[in-house]
Order: sequence, then structure tokens, then C-alpha cells
Amino acid sequence: MKVYEVRQFGIENLVLVERAEPQLKANEVVVKFHAASLNYRDLMFEKGVYNPKARLPAVPFSDGSGEVVAVGADVKKWNVGDRVCTIFTQGWLEGSLSIEKRRTTLGAGDLDGVLREYGTFDENGLIEVPGHLSFEEAATLPCAAVTAWNALVVSGNLKAGDTVLTLGTGGVSIFALQFAKMHGARVIVTSSSDQKLTKAKDLGADEIINYKKILDWDNAVLRLTNRIGVDHVVEVGGAGTLSKSLNAVRIGGHVAVIGVLAGAGGFDPRGVLMKAVRMQGILVGSRLMFEKMNNAIECNRLKPVIDKMFAFNEVSEALRYMESGSHFGKIVVSL
Amino acid sequence: MKVYEVRQFGIENLVLVERAEPQLKANEVVVKFHAASLNYRDLMFEKGVYNPKARLPAVPFSDGSGEVVAVGADVKKWNVGDRVCTIFTQGWLEGSLSIEKRRTTLGAGDLDGVLREYGTFDENGLIEVPGHLSFEEAATLPCAAVTAWNALVVSGNLKAGDTVLTLGTGGVSIFALQFAKMHGARVIVTSSSDQKLTKAKDLGADEIINYKKILDWDNAVLRLTNRIGVDHVVEVGGAGTLSKSLNAVRIGGHVAVIGVLAGAGGFDPRGVLMKAVRMQGILVGSRLMFEKMNNAIECNRLKPVIDKMFAFNEVSEALRYMESGSHFGKIVVSL
Amino acid sequence: MKVYEVRQFGIENLVLVERAEPQLKANEVVVKFHAASLNYRDLMFEKGVYNPKARLPAVPFSDGSGEVVAVGADVKKWNVGDRVCTIFTQGWLEGSLSIEKRRTTLGAGDLDGVLREYGTFDENGLIEVPGHLSFEEAATLPCAAVTAWNALVVSGNLKAGDTVLTLGTGGVSIFALQFAKMHGARVIVTSSSDQKLTKAKDLGADEIINYKKILDWDNAVLRLTNRIGVDHVVEVGGAGTLSKSLNAVRIGGHVAVIGVLAGAGGFDPRGVLMKAVRMQGILVGSRLMFEKMNNAIECNRLKPVIDKMFAFNEVSEALRYMESGSHFGKIVVSL
Amino acid sequence: MKVYEVRQFGIENLVLVERAEPQLKANEVVVKFHAASLNYRDLMFEKGVYNPKARLPAVPFSDGSGEVVAVGADVKKWNVGDRVCTIFTQGWLEGSLSIEKRRTTLGAGDLDGVLREYGTFDENGLIEVPGHLSFEEAATLPCAAVTAWNALVVSGNLKAGDTVLTLGTGGVSIFALQFAKMHGARVIVTSSSDQKLTKAKDLGADEIINYKKILDWDNAVLRLTNRIGVDHVVEVGGAGTLSKSLNAVRIGGHVAVIGVLAGAGGFDPRGVLMKAVRMQGILVGSRLMFEKMNNAIECNRLKPVIDKMFAFNEVSEALRYMESGSHFGKIVVSL
Repeated sequence: MKVYEVRQFGIENLVLVERAEPQLKANEVVVKFHAASLNYRDLMFEKGVYNPKARLPAVPFSDGSGEVVAVGADVKKWNVGDRVCTIFTQGWLEGSLSIEKRRTTLGAGDLDGVLREYGTFDENGLIEVPGHLSFEEAATLPCAAVTAWNALVVSGNLKAGDTVLTLGTGGVSIFALQFAKMHGARVIVTSSSDQKLTKAKDLGADEIINYKKILDWDNAVLRLTNRIGVDHVVEVGGAGTLSKSLNAVRIGGHVAVIGVLAGAGGFDPRGVLMKAVRMQGILVGSRLMFEKMNNAIECNRLKPVIDKMFAFNEVSEALRYMESGSHFGKIVVSL
Repeated sequence: MKVYEVRQFGIENLVLVERAEPQLKANEVVVKFHAASLNYRDLMFEKGVYNPKARLPAVPFSDGSGEVVAVGADVKKWNVGDRVCTIFTQGWLEGSLSIEKRRTTLGAGDLDGVLREYGTFDENGLIEVPGHLSFEEAATLPCAAVTAWNALVVSGNLKAGDTVLTLGTGGVSIFALQFAKMHGARVIVTSSSDQKLTKAKDLGADEIINYKKILDWDNAVLRLTNRIGVDHVVEVGGAGTLSKSLNAVRIGGHVAVIGVLAGAGGFDPRGVLMKAVRMQGILVGSRLMFEKMNNAIECNRLKPVIDKMFAFNEVSEALRYMESGSHFGKIVVSL
Repeated sequence: MKVYEVRQFGIENLVLVERAEPQLKANEVVVKFHAASLNYRDLMFEKGVYNPKARLPAVPFSDGSGEVVAVGADVKKWNVGDRVCTIFTQGWLEGSLSIEKRRTTLGAGDLDGVLREYGTFDENGLIEVPGHLSFEEAATLPCAAVTAWNALVVSGNLKAGDTVLTLGTGGVSIFALQFAKMHGARVIVTSSSDQKLTKAKDLGADEIINYKKILDWDNAVLRLTNRIGVDHVVEVGGAGTLSKSLNAVRIGGHVAVIGVLAGAGGFDPRGVLMKAVRMQGILVGSRLMFEKMNNAIECNRLKPVIDKMFAFNEVSEALRYMESGSHFGKIVVSL
Repeated sequence: MKVYEVRQFGIENLVLVERAEPQLKANEVVVKFHAASLNYRDLMFEKGVYNPKARLPAVPFSDGSGEVVAVGADVKKWNVGDRVCTIFTQGWLEGSLSIEKRRTTLGAGDLDGVLREYGTFDENGLIEVPGHLSFEEAATLPCAAVTAWNALVVSGNLKAGDTVLTLGTGGVSIFALQFAKMHGARVIVTSSSDQKLTKAKDLGADEIINYKKILDWDNAVLRLTNRIGVDHVVEVGGAGTLSKSLNAVRIGGHVAVIGVLAGAGGFDPRGVLMKAVRMQGILVGSRLMFEKMNNAIECNRLKPVIDKMFAFNEVSEALRYMESGSHFGKIVVSL
């Protein structure tokens, strides 16, 4: 089967190779992949900055969708022909995360990812694709959507009438916007592009802020919330935006810490203290969260936002497009 | 001022009288009432079966809306002209209920209710009317809407994709339907009337069951949920429906126990045990719940469903209409 | 190997037979049993009233302890010689219960129980015995202790200073007393025997009530709590005691519904409503709860209370002793 | 009455003056103070670094105890002679904190503190002293004890068997040690003094680490927890210790951010992300938390640890003693 491998770190070092067909154990399932989606983590992995000690070669990308083409003798969950997605953290079925579970993520050195024709997975490592979604749409879910769901619905315990602040228009932020609107919340979106902000409005955003034009966007958020601040921040910016996010959140509010986009750097923890803020680190989520999210997606006929699609042999172009930062929602590769 | 009083129990014993103008303390507010809504409790109170030991005469009805016409010297929350609703349990501002707080409900013997021209309240005993609602619409909120919000959003921790079962089409059940849809949930509605079920569909109900035609409606619910059962039951029927509700809920599910409509009677607690069900008694809710609910109502432009309106001098007709059980949503009296 | 089998229902129909050695799969472990403990469920199962449709013959008893004598090729958790307990619900590892998980309990018709010389289990179906406990002590934990832990610590979210009411002195109630004291709570114990109440005092009970002498023990509980009521009831009596328990609990309090001892019967659900009570059905608990409970047992050097020990060939006497109701804590069979 | 006032910032600028007797409103209570305790915040306030914009003169110190000597006409909670403590945040009765509530703390510029002979408070701004505590012991509770309770019991949801890390031996850390042991948890204490660590052992600490001798105390904590990390960190060190605390906590663990002792500085938020940590800022707590804590203190006969007592005219010495950092537990001034 055809597989993309990261043979040495440094972007552009993705190599298309032939590998032997996967072996099948009694509780395993073979998936023929049809689509994969990109996350910022994939870009960092290619560059060698995500996990510099990862063993190579490694198959990259965590988010794949496809159909079941073979099932092991003891498999109960799946039949040939079923449409499935991969679970980001294969060993995290439910409950809380642990060291052992965290070592089972796809596509960044723990376990081989999905940028390949076929893959073999434990039957619990897959989840059913909602009926109204294409393979391309389903491939957007495993990392970004589950992260947004965990951040707002599980950790954030989001309710109708809450106010949510999302930063930028990457995959997690757009899913966060969609899930927040699905729960009847009010959403404030920031971006550096008026065009993207208009798109966010179309998806239901209640308020928009162009942070290139309004540099003190945190104060703009306070003005939009009677100077109280928002209930939730979906914080994907890291050290670069966290101080402003802490200014924009209400006393006793919730900051879901997700991204590492804005790179390293420090911030003063007294912001957390003086507003009695809850900061919760979010590492994607469990199979059970994915399952409940899919119920919600199906029940509300939610459609993921795909910005652009690439062919299998355009993976490098897809990564460069992500690097440019010009996307709105998800970037998908058809396999 | 003109006041309706319950002088002795027995329906029809509502008497319209003149009372002296209320006195005003430093932290109090005088409200001129414009509308009031009926709850089943009001009917039971008139008949003397809600609280047979209540001191009479008493001003009935708990749910009123109107405008502020005078404020005490220390009042900070309100100005003359503000549009306000009464809080059902005047002393329950936030946190959990207590014996002391429970003794401060309006309109059933604790504190005088709202069926009068003017009323005097502690400034914390009122809440702002959402801007897009009329006085009549706002008068529907204090008991039924807060109860439904507490049942599903606070106690039930409702999430998009959850399945909710509501029984009948009274005020609480219709608000529960609306709040459940507002949070992206799936809703199954039962009623004895196809016409009401059609109206429920128009409000967003995903599934409808006519329990006069389908006597084992609990099994119908199981069939609609892959034999798993629903996540939440908004149980307004009491002993008359509880055993079926326990059959219709999933293992580990949530039954919000609200109503006393179906009268006394027992049920076997082993239903609770064998499905590890959580049964939560719901006694309306706190001022804080009301406030958060109003945020949600405002944010989502929700409109309460008023079935029928009556004039001040038609209160008895309004009660008889409620007794007939033919309403869908709320019954309102214009004052 | 030697096995006790229930061949037909009706107490006394336990038969000691020889069965073939168990087969071993890659993820399985063979345990040589050293001790088993009795639960009321075992008595009901023998009599055919627990699950009258269970397939026979079946090996009874859910709670066993022993040592690992063989491990399958893929087993990572265990080595030969490890001291282990069985998990009551083999398939409930963490998170919430489901229909599928509930079908995996030991010793009552789902899966063979522990009243045998050797047993084969999935590696996740076992848990390590705390170092300071004997096999006999460890055998008391899987059902009664995990039930009490789930009731008070997981469902009840017990805190120091809370007041807990336990009914009687069976296995669950005594563990509940011990766990409540371990968390700094105040405990009120009821029993029909002054002698048992004295023993409960020795274990830390703060207040004792002989319900044979004080028939309105619910009012006695109210008197001991400034007429507020207790925060938690560990309700093992079922319909026979539930109405009194609802009288004894505070507004907004928590009733963990566990037992079926007092047989069928109904109760009026308005008690739940009018005090805004939370009633939670408790079906033992997950592997993760067991693990956390064992941490607590080990950290606090807690010793389970064993009332009486029986030899392998005295199983019928042990069951009759349980039936007599004269025990305080757990009854254990040495294998 | 005699009052200590901060007239201008800079330690040593406490001045003893005479002020007029306080006025009494209908819902107010006059307290004659018997004792006050010091918190690090008081030291910072004197120096002008806590709230440089506070209006002066101001009466410092938040934590006082005394007896009721007069009650307003409408006061229901108190009688003359009752023994009471002040609430740190006078307006935070229950529920969550808000901007308005946060502006009602004692002794740092919002409201006058307790370093005076008499004080007038709203009846809800006081709480009953547990019966077994002296005034000196009770004066230790309002800030440090409630903070520790909020951190571990409310925010941390502490359970028996959890592992807790406390830093140093100041007031909050010693209460955290005591509350953790009260709940059956395992506690690891750090300090720079072997003598203090021995005292911590006497109070029940399970493990001790001298961080002057073991500079990588975070790794020492990992070694003591099978390299898993602790469940809770009571983080009083701020930027100076937070990175190490994040190394010492388990995946999905809880860091209660309390102190500002170690001054300003930044830390890399990726530590929060990569371990899915929950960081919760703790600003003392509500009246309701204080009430529940007092139940626990009374039920478990807990005695606060007083390091040293000073007379009214030795307040400056008391502050200097706190500044020296040589205390273990609380410093108290007798009034």
C-alpha cells in the first residue's frame, strides 16, 4: 500500500513509499482511507518542532476517514463497508487522560497516522461517520472538532446565553463557533481579516473584531459585554494572546488553553489569580466525547467548514497552504 | 388598590377587594402589574389542596410582570419605569434551596401573590424583563420557564445531542421543549391530542407520540432511541406516569420530578435502582437561574407560547380553562 | 477444579462439582481463589428471586480474591503471584454504566462467579489487593465497599462536615460508615440491636438510633440535625424505609438508593419533589472507582469489618447465617 | 474607640487613633473585637504594593473575631453575646464571585478592616465561631482557612486517597494540610526548614521535602508518586514556583493558584496545555464555604495552628515577624 512517511524532520521531507499490507489481529479492523485533514500539529511535526525525539520514519496526520474493508475474528462493532473516522488518541476511550493513554495519539511519533491507503486499528480506535457527512467532511472531526467540543461542552459546560470568545478562524475556532451557536450561546470572533469575519457572521457569529484594526481587542470584548467579560475563551494563541484573553474573560470565567500557535513565551499568573479564572488545558478528547459530539452533529445536521481540498500527491502544497495562515476552517486531503 | 383575594378555599372563592396602598421601605420597590400567568399550583391553591393550612385571605398567583412606579431610598437595581417580573421564591437568590428560602414563595400562603394592581417587593425579588418580550409574555416566565430551565439546564446539564422526553403540553413542558431545542437536543413530546402534537412539531419537536393511541408510550420511546432510552425526562405527571418514565429513560439517565398533576400514588423504587437513575425534585429555581435563563431567552429571541389571554375580571374563567386541560403553553391574565 | 454451581433455584441447591481447567486467551489471567464474600444478592440469586431467567448451572458469588497463577501472552498488568480481587461488573472499567456493561456482572447468571478453585478473567477484570489486607479482607471489597464508595464519594460528593445517615449494619452500611468517617463527616447509624450500635460507635459513629425502640427514627434524625435533616442517606431498605428516609433528609439532600432488602412496595414521589431531593440509584461501580477506593483504603490503612468466616464446604451455612440477618459487616468464605 | 489606621503607605505607618463610635442600621451588628490574624496581604497593603490606589486612611487586617455587643432592629441572626468572625468578602454570601462582590473585602481599601476595638457589620458579614475555638483561634479562619477550603474542597473536590502537594508552611498551606488529612488524603509538604517539616509531620504530613536541600523538589514529588504526579497543588508561590508545580502535578491534575509571595514573573502556558492541567485562581471564598468549613472544623474538632501571639500595641512587631518568614501557621494579635 502507498504511505506518506516523514523520514527526517524539516518540512518537505514527506516521502511517498510502498509498505507491506497490515497484519490483522482478532480485535482489529482494516480501513481504506478516503480523506485526511490537516492540523497545525502536523505542520509542527513535519518541521521537527512538535516532538523532536519521535522515531522516524513515521506516517503523519491524525485525522482520517474511510471505509472498513476487513474485520478480525472477534470484532463486534464493525462490518465491511462501514464508514469510519479515526480517534485521535487511540487508547483514550472514556474518563480522564493518563500518561499511558496520552502515548497513543496518531501521526506524531506514537502511532502511525493516516496518510496512507490502508490502516489497521483496534476496533475501539474508530468511530462511525455521521450519515449526512461525506468522507472529506468526516475527516475534519477527530482533532479540531473534538478539541472544540471538549473545550466548550465538556470542560466549559456551555449553556445557552453564555458568551464565548474565539480567536482566529482556524479549525478549532470555527468548530467552537458552530458548537457554541448550536447550544444557544453568544459568540464573539476575532480575526485579522474582514473577509473571514464576514464568513464568521454567516456562520452565526454575534460580534466580530478585527484585531489588526482594534489592537486592544480585549478591551473591545469588555465593551461588548458590559465590562463584565466573556464566560469562555477558546484560547488557541498561547503566550502571545493569553494575557489579553485573561483581560477579556469575566471573574470566575473559563479559559480553555489549546494552541501553541503563537509560540513560546511567558505570562504573569496573577491574571489567573486576581480574576479567579479557571484555565483548563485541552488535549483533544476521548472516544466517548467524540461519540456524543457526533450525536450532536447528526441531530443538528451540522456541516464542517472545509476551506480547501487537495489531492493525495499535493500534501506538501496543503501543508504550505496551512503555513500561510490564510485558511478559514479545515484543509482536507482526498486520498 | 384592587386585589384578588382567596378568602376561603374552594374554587370560585376569589374576591376582588380594595386594599390600602403598600408601604415602602428603603430597599423596596413598588410595581404596577400589567399581566399575570397561571400555573397548576394556582388551581390547587384555590381549591385548598395545595397548602390547606395557608393563612387567608391571601393574594393568589406567583407570576407577575409590570413596571416600577416607586423605589425606596436605598434601591440600586431599579428606576421608575423599569419593566420587571416577580421572582417565584423571593428569598432564593442563588445557591441551593433551604427551609427558610422555601418559605418565601409568592401566591400560595407564604407571601402575597401578584393578582393585584400594585405590589411592593424587595429589590432582589424582581428581575428585568427581556427587551423583546411584552408584559404578557414576560408574565409566563417566573414559575414554568424557570422550572424547565432548572430541570434541563441546571439539574440536567443538557448538551446538544442529548435526547429529552417531555410529557404533555402544559407550560413547563413547552418551555422544556423550547430550551432543549435551544441547546441542540433531540426532543420527544407526548400528548393526547394530535392537534397539540402538530403544534409541538412546529416548535421543533423531533418526535411525537399520542399517548391515547399508543398506550405503551414508554416502549414507543425506547423504539425511538435504539432501545437505549432518553437522557432526560421532564416528569410532570407524578405517580401516574413515573413508572413508565423510568422505563423510558436510559441507564444512568436523569428524571426531573416536577409535577403533581396525576395526583397521589406510589411507585416501586427498584426502577430507580436497577437503571441507576438520578431522580431530581425540582422546585422552580433561584434568581440567578432566572437571570441566566433570561440571558438565553434574549440571546436566542425566544418567544413564550401563550395559549389564551383573559381580562382581570375573567380570572375565574381563566382558572376553569386551565382545569379543562385543553391549553398548549401558558394562560395569561392582563391586569 | 472444584466449583460450586447453582443447578436449580431454591436455597440449598448449591452443588460442588469438578469442572475442566479454564482455557487461557492472550489477554487473560488465571486466578487461584483464596476467599469470597457474601452479599444479599447472592442469597436472592440462590433463591431464584434475583434473576429468575438466569441460565443454569451458574457459579455464584461475585466477590473473590486470590493470586495470579498464569498470565496470557499479551497481559501487561499482572505477574504470577500478584494478589488480586475480582471486579463486580467486569466490563465497566470507567465512565458511566451502559446496557452492555451491566450485562457483565459476576455470579448471578451473566458471567460465572468466584465460588471455585480457579477462574479466568480478562486482565482488566481484576484489581490489585491493598498491601495491608489479607485475602479474606480483600474479598469483602468488590460489591459492598465499591457500592458504598460510589454512593457517598462519587454520587454524593461527600465533604468533611456533611451528615450521613446509614440504615442497619450490613456490609454496605458499615463501609459507608467507615468511608464517611474517613472523609471527616458526621454519621448517624440506625439498627435494631443495641449491641450492634455499640460496635458502630467503636467504628466512629457519631450518633446511634435503635429503630426498634424509636419507631419514628426519621424524626429522631431531624432532632439530631436541628430539624434540617441529613445531607446523605445510604438507603438500603427500599420501599420499606424510603418514605422515612425522605423525611430525614434535608431540602436538596441526596438519597443513594441501593438495597432491595425490604422488598417490593411503593412510595409517594411527592416526597422527592417537595424537598427537591436527589435520588440516585447505585449499581456497585466501575473499575476506576474501585482503584480510587483502594488508594483511599491503603492511604488510611482501613480494615474491612468481617463478622464471621466459613470454610469452603460451609457455604450453605454462610448463606443461612446471612439470611438470619444477625451479621455486622461482612461474611466471608475461605477457599 | 481605638483604631489602627494606615495613613500613608510604607510599613511602620500604622497609627493608633480614636474614632467615633460606629452608627447602627436596622440590619447591622456591632462587634467588639478580641483578636485578629495576619495574612501576607496585610503586609503588602502596609507597604502599598497590594492596592496602591486604595483610599487612606484605612483600617487594615481582614480577619477578626469578637463578640456581638449591639444588634439593629431587624437583625435575626445574632444576639448580644454571640461569638463571631468576620467574613473576608462581606458581599459574597454564596454562589460565584462577581465584580461587585469582589469590591467588598475587608482591610485593604474596600471596607475598613478589623484592627480596631469595635466594628459595625451587616448581619450577613459575620459567622458563628465554632464552639471549641478561642477568639484567637477563630481569628485565623476568615482568609487563610477559607482559601485552603475553597482550593481543596470546593475547587479541588478532594477525596480520600488523593495526593496533595503544599508549598511552605504559611497559614494557607497548614490549613490545606489539615483539611487534606481530614478528608483522608495523602499530603506532601515542602519547606526550607527541617524543623518546620518535623512539625508538619506531627500534623499528619505523609511526606516531607526540604526544598533547600532538594532543589529539584518537583522531581522528588514525581518519585514519591510513581512518576504520576500529585492530584492537587496548593500553589502559593506564584511565578517563582509554578513551573515546578506544573511538573509535579499529574496529567489532568489541579493547581489552585493562590499566592503572590514569589512576586511577578512569567511562566510558559504550554505546561498547562501539555498535561491538560486545570489551574484555578482562588480568591478566598463565600460565606457559605465558611459555614460548611466551620461544620467540618467543629465535627472534627480541628484546632488552627497559631505560631505566635502579639498584643494590640505590638502590631508592627507582628508584621515584621511575618515579613521574616519564620512562622509556621498563623500569627495572631490579641485586641
